[in-house]
Amino acid sequence: MSDVNNYIASNKERFLNELLDLLRIPSISADSNYTGDVLKAAGFIKEKLIAAGAEKAEICETPGHPIVYGEKIISSDLPTVLVYGHYDVQPPDPLDLWDSPPFEPVIKKTDLHPEGAIFARGSCDDKGQVYMHIKAFEAMVETGQLACNVKFIIEGEEEVGSDNLETFLKENVEMLKADVVLVSDTGIIANDVPSITVGLRGLSYVEVEVTGPNRDLHSGLYGGAVPNPINILAEMIASLKTADQKINIDGFYDDVVELTAEERTAMAEAPFVLEEYKDSIGLSDIEGESGYTSMERASIRPTLDVNGIWGGYTGEGAKTVIASKAYAKISMRLVPNQDPDKITTLFTNHFKSIAPKSVSVKVTPHHGGLPAVTPTDSPAYLAAAEAMESTFGKKPVPFRGGGSIPIVALFEQILGLKTVLMGFGLDSDAIHSPNEHYGIFNYFKGIETIPEFYKNYAAKSK
Amino acid sequence: MSDVNNYIASNKERFLNELLDLLRIPSISADSNYTGDVLKAAGFIKEKLIAAGAEKAEICETPGHPIVYGEKIISSDLPTVLVYGHYDVQPPDPLDLWDSPPFEPVIKKTDLHPEGAIFARGSCDDKGQVYMHIKAFEAMVETGQLACNVKFIIEGEEEVGSDNLETFLKENVEMLKADVVLVSDTGIIANDVPSITVGLRGLSYVEVEVTGPNRDLHSGLYGGAVPNPINILAEMIASLKTADQKINIDGFYDDVVELTAEERTAMAEAPFVLEEYKDSIGLSDIEGESGYTSMERASIRPTLDVNGIWGGYTGEGAKTVIASKAYAKISMRLVPNQDPDKITTLFTNHFKSIAPKSVSVKVTPHHGGLPAVTPTDSPAYLAAAEAMESTFGKKPVPFRGGGSIPIVALFEQILGLKTVLMGFGLDSDAIHSPNEHYGIFNYFKGIETIPEFYKNYAAKSK
Repeated sequence: MSDVNNYIASNKERFLNELLDLLRIPSISADSNYTGDVLKAAGFIKEKLIAAGAEKAEICETPGHPIVYGEKIISSDLPTVLVYGHYDVQPPDPLDLWDSPPFEPVIKKTDLHPEGAIFARGSCDDKGQVYMHIKAFEAMVETGQLACNVKFIIEGEEEVGSDNLETFLKENVEMLKADVVLVSDTGIIANDVPSITVGLRGLSYVEVEVTGPNRDLHSGLYGGAVPNPINILAEMIASLKTADQKINIDGFYDDVVELTAEERTAMAEAPFVLEEYKDSIGLSDIEGESGYTSMERASIRPTLDVNGIWGGYTGEGAKTVIASKAYAKISMRLVPNQDPDKITTLFTNHFKSIAPKSVSVKVTPHHGGLPAVTPTDSPAYLAAAEAMESTFGKKPVPFRGGGSIPIVALFEQILGLKTVLMGFGLDSDAIHSPNEHYGIFNYFKGIETIPEFYKNYAAKSK
Repeated sequence: MSDVNNYIASNKERFLNELLDLLRIPSISADSNYTGDVLKAAGFIKEKLIAAGAEKAEICETPGHPIVYGEKIISSDLPTVLVYGHYDVQPPDPLDLWDSPPFEPVIKKTDLHPEGAIFARGSCDDKGQVYMHIKAFEAMVETGQLACNVKFIIEGEEEVGSDNLETFLKENVEMLKADVVLVSDTGIIANDVPSITVGLRGLSYVEVEVTGPNRDLHSGLYGGAVPNPINILAEMIASLKTADQKINIDGFYDDVVELTAEERTAMAEAPFVLEEYKDSIGLSDIEGESGYTSMERASIRPTLDVNGIWGGYTGEGAKTVIASKAYAKISMRLVPNQDPDKITTLFTNHFKSIAPKSVSVKVTPHHGGLPAVTPTDSPAYLAAAEAMESTFGKKPVPFRGGGSIPIVALFEQILGLKTVLMGFGLDSDAIHSPNEHYGIFNYFKGIETIPEFYKNYAAKSK
């Protein structure tokens, strides 16, 4: 692969600058004020796919944000890799916690990134990782080393639930025919501990609204005599977990697949130092479901977290008000074989059942996603493992992650395809948080590893 | 008093328009963006005091918002009435629930106000009620009927805790010498059920901050393994009350004065229809501390209400984040003989003690106020009761209110003066809420009743 590596080395600066241009587009899918920017990012991806060597690239309209499709078919004798990623990003709030503006990328060195990291919303999740694939593709095409047919679907709604992807897949089964899906939207354990994600949690995400009095009331005149929806919401949330941090909803654990003792032992071999983990996020003490380790809690166990809460007066100073309404956004991470629709229904019925009669409760589902486990003995997994071993100089660890990529289950159900999750981020990259960043090392390691995957996968498919 | 009444009748339109001008000034004391408007409102009050006949009126600087002082001394043989009120207002949030802009007063008829009510922030609390005193004063001066010396202190920090009033009183004991304090910052039971407030709850108001991880985290990567400060804040809040809605803080009730059976029976005679109460605020069911009626819960019992809560992602759509911090504003209404400083300390120690080790907790006191009970057999109370009887045609009911006017205790401690709380608002006036309003009936009934008070009080002081 020395041609490819030489090409990458001699185009390093351009590869980096193009990514910075993409990061300057605030393609926030959750916020309708940014619809134009989301479209602009889609256009950028399409243009760059063509420039990189795609024979065909198009912006496919959906009822929401569009999906960019591109392809280069060399020969029907070769296997086809379907690359999936997303060009939309999470909202950057809270803005005041960013050290530099989220859509004005800057490169700074950090302890974990002595070569520098790109600080910008989407740098790791997922624009930086998508762009690795486009640049690796360019390098393979330009050097005549493209070893597989390749198809790209880069969507714009991953951060809001991929609502229109399912229909798109169903309507384009023929066009999307492939042998494997390759996704870089996960991470490695450390820059010297490569890993491949082989399990992902699912997701059920709801918004709840608790209404007490029909208007805000003066807490002096009414306090004590009327239901306070904020206090009541707090009580309802508190009751969702038991003292040992089990989720207190009947039937919630019914479908959970428990790992065997062997599986748990194997998992415990991954490098993990509790003190370092605590230090990295500034915690003096840790907590979680009893009977499980921190790594297990974050990967093989389901969760319930309040992601946002609001109600009443939240401005400067004091206002003595009893709010009419209180709200929370609540998400549950799910593990194999939990079903997000079933869990959303369980939650909704339970949450309404625990409300006192004095308030009314509305539960609105946002989006869900199925949990997934991927095989470690497939040709595609082995191709990825060997690719990483060749670029990192170390065999990657198979790893179960805590996040969700609901589309993995969709690819299996609709296209009958297995997915390889070959991501290059670090947990410490602060995705979904202020100061998201992505290592320069990781960006180029990804661009170098992807062509190795194509080469290995073509060889194994012969 | 026919001269006075004639004067009021022939100046009705002007009396109303001047109040509307005052209501157009957004004198929000809690928000430093409005400091200029707070000052403008102080200037307005000073000018109008002079125009109404004050011999002296001045804006007295404080470290916060200024206090307007004015006086007219006729004779050392006559008793002196010290009128207290405030020209600052509560923040108008949430703005989108107002039917008309909060600082653009409009007059509209309502079921309870067939003669019309003025809709604007501060219309009832307390600009409308302060301005009754200035116009009643003008009417008495212009008709030569002023029966007492009069002093005014109209402050600009009542809605943020009257932080600088105590020092002002202490530094001006001589200037403020009087025989009684007269305040209109409370209400009557109904326009056909006049009442005088004889008890008020005190207040302890704190802001709490719970910090978990040192930055926002991705709920997929970290969820389950780290403390979520929003869930923990909800659990801490929920634990502050028992199932029968007692406040679950050791020592909280230690100093509470329980009413006798006779007092509770007398209180129960005030007109109150639970179904109407529920309907008026849109509740299908009511709740509160067990063993007490709704009226008792709102007046003679202490409370704990969350007035605001926030943390995490509160925008449109879904964001899968574990927030670093969660916040709440919590107030406790207090009854005789609870001490706000003692309660604030009890709360702070308790709240910190119930925090799990995985988070840190900060408690910031906002402001407090002492509870108060006023006598019903004093010459001043009787002067007020007879004044109301003459204008409403009905003896007023002595009534214990749920709100707080902390300055009542200050006047007693520093100036040695008892206060008469002769207010004219209605509970339904939505003070501190969107669409605050004040009846035209109530405004002019106040202007007519105040001169009767002066006349009666002068007669009783002979």
